[in-house]
Amino acid sequence: MKAFQVQDGHLVAIEKPLPDLLPNWALIKVRLAGICNTDVEILRGYHDFRGIPGHEFVGEVVQVGDGGHATPAIKQQQSRWIGRRVTGDINVSCSAYGYKPVCEFCLRGLKTHCARRTVLGIVNHDGAFAEYLALPTENLHEVPNSVPDEQSVFVEPLAAACEILEQIDVKQFRAAAVLGDGKLAQLIARVLKTEIPRVVMYGKHETKLEMVNATANDGEKLPRKARVETIQLSGTDADLKRVKESFALVVEATGSPTGLALAQHITEPRGTLVLKSTFHGASPVETWPIVVKEITVVGSRCGPFAKAIRLLREPKIDPRPLITRTFPLDEAPAALAYAQQKDVMKVLLKP
Amino acid sequence: MKAFQVQDGHLVAIEKPLPDLLPNWALIKVRLAGICNTDVEILRGYHDFRGIPGHEFVGEVVQVGDGGHATPAIKQQQSRWIGRRVTGDINVSCSAYGYKPVCEFCLRGLKTHCARRTVLGIVNHDGAFAEYLALPTENLHEVPNSVPDEQSVFVEPLAAACEILEQIDVKQFRAAAVLGDGKLAQLIARVLKTEIPRVVMYGKHETKLEMVNATANDGEKLPRKARVETIQLSGTDADLKRVKESFALVVEATGSPTGLALAQHITEPRGTLVLKSTFHGASPVETWPIVVKEITVVGSRCGPFAKAIRLLREPKIDPRPLITRTFPLDEAPAALAYAQQKDVMKVLLKP
Repeated sequence: MKAFQVQDGHLVAIEKPLPDLLPNWALIKVRLAGICNTDVEILRGYHDFRGIPGHEFVGEVVQVGDGGHATPAIKQQQSRWIGRRVTGDINVSCSAYGYKPVCEFCLRGLKTHCARRTVLGIVNHDGAFAEYLALPTENLHEVPNSVPDEQSVFVEPLAAACEILEQIDVKQFRAAAVLGDGKLAQLIARVLKTEIPRVVMYGKHETKLEMVNATANDGEKLPRKARVETIQLSGTDADLKRVKESFALVVEATGSPTGLALAQHITEPRGTLVLKSTFHGASPVETWPIVVKEITVVGSRCGPFAKAIRLLREPKIDPRPLITRTFPLDEAPAALAYAQQKDVMKVLLKP
Repeated sequence: MKAFQVQDGHLVAIEKPLPDLLPNWALIKVRLAGICNTDVEILRGYHDFRGIPGHEFVGEVVQVGDGGHATPAIKQQQSRWIGRRVTGDINVSCSAYGYKPVCEFCLRGLKTHCARRTVLGIVNHDGAFAEYLALPTENLHEVPNSVPDEQSVFVEPLAAACEILEQIDVKQFRAAAVLGDGKLAQLIARVLKTEIPRVVMYGKHETKLEMVNATANDGEKLPRKARVETIQLSGTDADLKRVKESFALVVEATGSPTGLALAQHITEPRGTLVLKSTFHGASPVETWPIVVKEITVVGSRCGPFAKAIRLLREPKIDPRPLITRTFPLDEAPAALAYAQQKDVMKVLLKP
């Protein structure tokens, strides 16, 4: 199959055999893959990943591994999944590899924190910038016919945004702030808007902030009761003086090392600050405001796929306006370069 | 009265009139004051404080202000408090200054987060490195006769340690780690030991770690069921590789910018990391482990005085072995210098 691999900070085209399938693992023909900031970070060295990146995808199941013995249970999985359009949880845990005993986190039901996990396109597991990928069937989520590929490819990042709802009872808040105006921040603002009357997005980019007004609030026959307000920042220390309002719930999703200081600044005493940004390297942070204001900082990563699919189906969220451009898989390196340009939002790859 | 004031990074002796008393404020004759790392940070510029530092104290109430009108309510306060041996909550909130309406945090009962608060010896309020100080009677806590001055002077930092119990249901944990072996870390380990079967203290200083074994576990006829174990660190990056155990509850109380990285390292996925260290200035921190492990970081500051007094009275904790030396108030500058020397724990000032 055709695929792209990380090599010395670049994406390089390779030809590779189809991935081997353990019993109950599915071979998935990728229909669309999304480019995430994490992919950019991976090229910069994040996680020292050397394989095929890509963890946002929608595809079709073409085979389910039987290890040479098509037991009735495996035949059932095959008839359940082959031909289905799916997306998939990117964390592959103990049970899928047949480890016994499973680790304590799997035992506690925290499969996304499995001590031995691989992560699609991020940790020891080839990802979606390829014609095919492999995932255990237990990770798969079928997408309904009413949710097209261009929406389904957002299920993974939308689930990450929904993780906040799993971790925090957001209904208790009358307002929330989202720091950042990039792809993930845009999804987070839309998810919070389904539960909180007032969401304020702080961002540096006029075009991206306008996208919220055009598409999150008015565009898509989505529920309009709640609104996302936008406030433009300069990106300098002056913002710390200019931004006067504070919030009991703040989500830091700037993807930038400088976001945390402003996030602490606008979180009120005893407030909750959700950290979503992952980036490579250390940045100087003053931590005393967390202590003095007794802020609770909640790290938040992967989330519930079923909830994300529900939001798309209802529809409470339509992420398609966030797509800037779709490239053929062959042009993956150009697509990744394009994804880092100013005002570019989601870039997709079509094998 | 005699007092010491911060001036250009030093403590300078001054003569000052007794503090003015608002109605229902108490004039307190200081019996003993404690030196805290925050006082050292204040001399380095923390909070730009220019007054009399000192926020750990035990003293005797000698007067209660009546504003010229000794109403029956004020007379009652006078007979309730004059002559009593007290310690006092250091955060002075809206109500004590007569602000109307009170701020939203006071309205919610979060007086330690009052938007207009002053803080004894830290923010706009002269503190305990003096013969007398003033606090509203609503901040006072009488200490019982069975708790001598040398224990009572620890009520404020012990309350700060107890704040963790207010914020987190620690009984759910079978083990906890405390990072740091200084004064606050020592109290935190002793407080956690009252609720958690196994507490592990990670510190750099052999003498301070030995103090735990000698006094927290065996010394004072205190409950011995739980134990504090100690592990000595090198204080270098090698610790990150050497420390293998991880904990669902970790308290960072090193008082050092480098503590956070190790704290993140030993906090298990979905674990809780309590931040206690406040220090001046920014330090480089990688925040992605908080996100990837979905750690909850809880900032923790001032705590419940009543609970701290109860722990001393029962006694579940005896902090007196932590006292290294008591200086006369006159020698406050020397005492502060001494407090920063190697292996010195609590230093007290006696007016």
